[in-house]
Amino acid sequence: MTDPLTTGATIGILGGGQLGRMLSVAAARLGFKTCVFEPGGDCPTSHVANYHFQASYDDADALRKFAAAVDVVTYEFENIPTAALDILEGLVPVRPGRKALKISQDRLTEKAFLTDLGLKTAPFAAVDDTVDLAEAMAEIGLPAILKTRRFGYDGKGQARIMSEGDAAQALTDMAGQEAILEGFVAFTHEVSVIGARNTAGDVACYDPGENVHKDGILHTTTVPARLTTAQRTDAVLLTAQILNKLDYVGVMGVELFVTAQGLLVNEIAPRVHNSGHWTQQGCTIDQFEQHIRAVAGWPLGDGSRYADVVMENLIGADMERVPEIAKEPGTALHLYGKAEAKPGRKMGHVNRIIRG
Amino acid sequence: MTDPLTTGATIGILGGGQLGRMLSVAAARLGFKTCVFEPGGDCPTSHVANYHFQASYDDADALRKFAAAVDVVTYEFENIPTAALDILEGLVPVRPGRKALKISQDRLTEKAFLTDLGLKTAPFAAVDDTVDLAEAMAEIGLPAILKTRRFGYDGKGQARIMSEGDAAQALTDMAGQEAILEGFVAFTHEVSVIGARNTAGDVACYDPGENVHKDGILHTTTVPARLTTAQRTDAVLLTAQILNKLDYVGVMGVELFVTAQGLLVNEIAPRVHNSGHWTQQGCTIDQFEQHIRAVAGWPLGDGSRYADVVMENLIGADMERVPEIAKEPGTALHLYGKAEAKPGRKMGHVNRIIRG
Repeated sequence: MTDPLTTGATIGILGGGQLGRMLSVAAARLGFKTCVFEPGGDCPTSHVANYHFQASYDDADALRKFAAAVDVVTYEFENIPTAALDILEGLVPVRPGRKALKISQDRLTEKAFLTDLGLKTAPFAAVDDTVDLAEAMAEIGLPAILKTRRFGYDGKGQARIMSEGDAAQALTDMAGQEAILEGFVAFTHEVSVIGARNTAGDVACYDPGENVHKDGILHTTTVPARLTTAQRTDAVLLTAQILNKLDYVGVMGVELFVTAQGLLVNEIAPRVHNSGHWTQQGCTIDQFEQHIRAVAGWPLGDGSRYADVVMENLIGADMERVPEIAKEPGTALHLYGKAEAKPGRKMGHVNRIIRG
Repeated sequence: MTDPLTTGATIGILGGGQLGRMLSVAAARLGFKTCVFEPGGDCPTSHVANYHFQASYDDADALRKFAAAVDVVTYEFENIPTAALDILEGLVPVRPGRKALKISQDRLTEKAFLTDLGLKTAPFAAVDDTVDLAEAMAEIGLPAILKTRRFGYDGKGQARIMSEGDAAQALTDMAGQEAILEGFVAFTHEVSVIGARNTAGDVACYDPGENVHKDGILHTTTVPARLTTAQRTDAVLLTAQILNKLDYVGVMGVELFVTAQGLLVNEIAPRVHNSGHWTQQGCTIDQFEQHIRAVAGWPLGDGSRYADVVMENLIGADMERVPEIAKEPGTALHLYGKAEAKPGRKMGHVNRIIRG
């Protein structure tokens, strides 16, 4: 596929959560149909997608049918099984490509990639066993945080080591998975850049947002972030560097720690990102449409920020506040249509707009 | 239904065109599922709706199943067969209600309703035959325009009478349908107000837009419209008067002629309206979400205008310009996913934004 997709083309989306839902709506806005591949039934994306392949990621036959039904495949989460990608890649373009997935699926590979690029990260070391962990603690110092190399998100698969006495339990918490020890970083705040790159190699970045987490889950993103002009430029340039190095096509989230020594890269996500939801009310073209434009071979859209926005996630019981939020002026609600409001579950978000 | 609908409730939409499509997306944004009833197969709304009842409007069984599957019914066009409404109304709330539909389905009833309210319209008279037409021409004067009382839209079912010699052909053009003769109005420009009223009786109106037509189809809507402060106030007040008189629930489009004698009401549409598409880029809550909020028993959202916008319809071959439009800064494309770009067919629209 080298020509831009036109009206009526179908975009395949792996994963049926809220990110897939908002990607699907953005694709429809540009005249595309969408087809979601998701093992779950009544999922947020299926409500708005044109087709739903309800099958397991190890169902090779379903994957082949899915590939035949779509013109390009993208995804809303990075932990897609390798075997599924092997099948799809041979049949249809997958965007963003394998390189970005490979790196972001493994915290160790990701950190190594970033430091090879000359970017700063927290100090880190691979940990497979007790000996590794002792050496890593000696090298990095405490406090530190032990994380599984793969499949961790929203604080899952992580254990803090405040003193040497915590080490054994932390290793047990990894449940035999390969891990990485990361040193604590003295940062003042976290920001993230939502960057995009299209098939022509054009790069565009949204204004960085400032993130606050609660219980390991993103709580709010505020734009503009507290950054000097130099930091803002650095943040955007390093994002472009990452995108270009990966021949990336699509939208990427880059989380950064702001420290006295400059910006440290915390992690990258090869997909639209929760910290970019503010773009729905702050820009002409939001991160979801930007991603669809990129993977469809279109020119990138105008993502310049025209308003100050505070995005707040609605988690679990926060849904009880919806009737009140619905009355607020200058406020846009985005609900994901999930049936049950369990604790820790992302149910929606709200963008509060302060026009710039 | 008196309580507001909550996440997971299903909104039924009669009609599967672009208005239904954008209503469906707005409903999803608030966590609702949507179910479209539309005889056609691959229709714009079905691409984004959760369910599609593909059946005829005279299929009573399908209508009953549809009613059972949804919590409220709304519609994207006013010419819904009366028998279909009779079935639905007994089973599920239909919003906006029957009163508004009855009036807007018949140009004569509509004009009579408006003049009863004390509002100005073009001079009009009922025309069923040659005798009526001669009398009406004598009363109203020429030039005038003969229109079918029912089922006309986008310039269809209309014939201009410039001189008496055109009268016979104009009547033939009505193909035996009841008609109405309307006098020409000397207006400087046309504006429209998109108003909303919810189940609590709250009314909110968007800033009026100024409309330009081409070949009988809306070409552009520009906000702000050229209106004096007094005219702007009049436009909003008369819209509120119409909404209240009809116990209306939902969004309505009110087309107005600006004349030396004040504002004349051209016609009302009991649904979201093409001239309100600019709200997608000019307001926090657009006309589609406003309509969904109203029919779902929610509070109305913040529809204050924060930008100057020019909306342009993309008709037929205008689709060839999409690749160029996609590159424009400050421009949002909205395509409807229609397979074929026939002449006169609305394929999409573009909102060009000049931040206020």
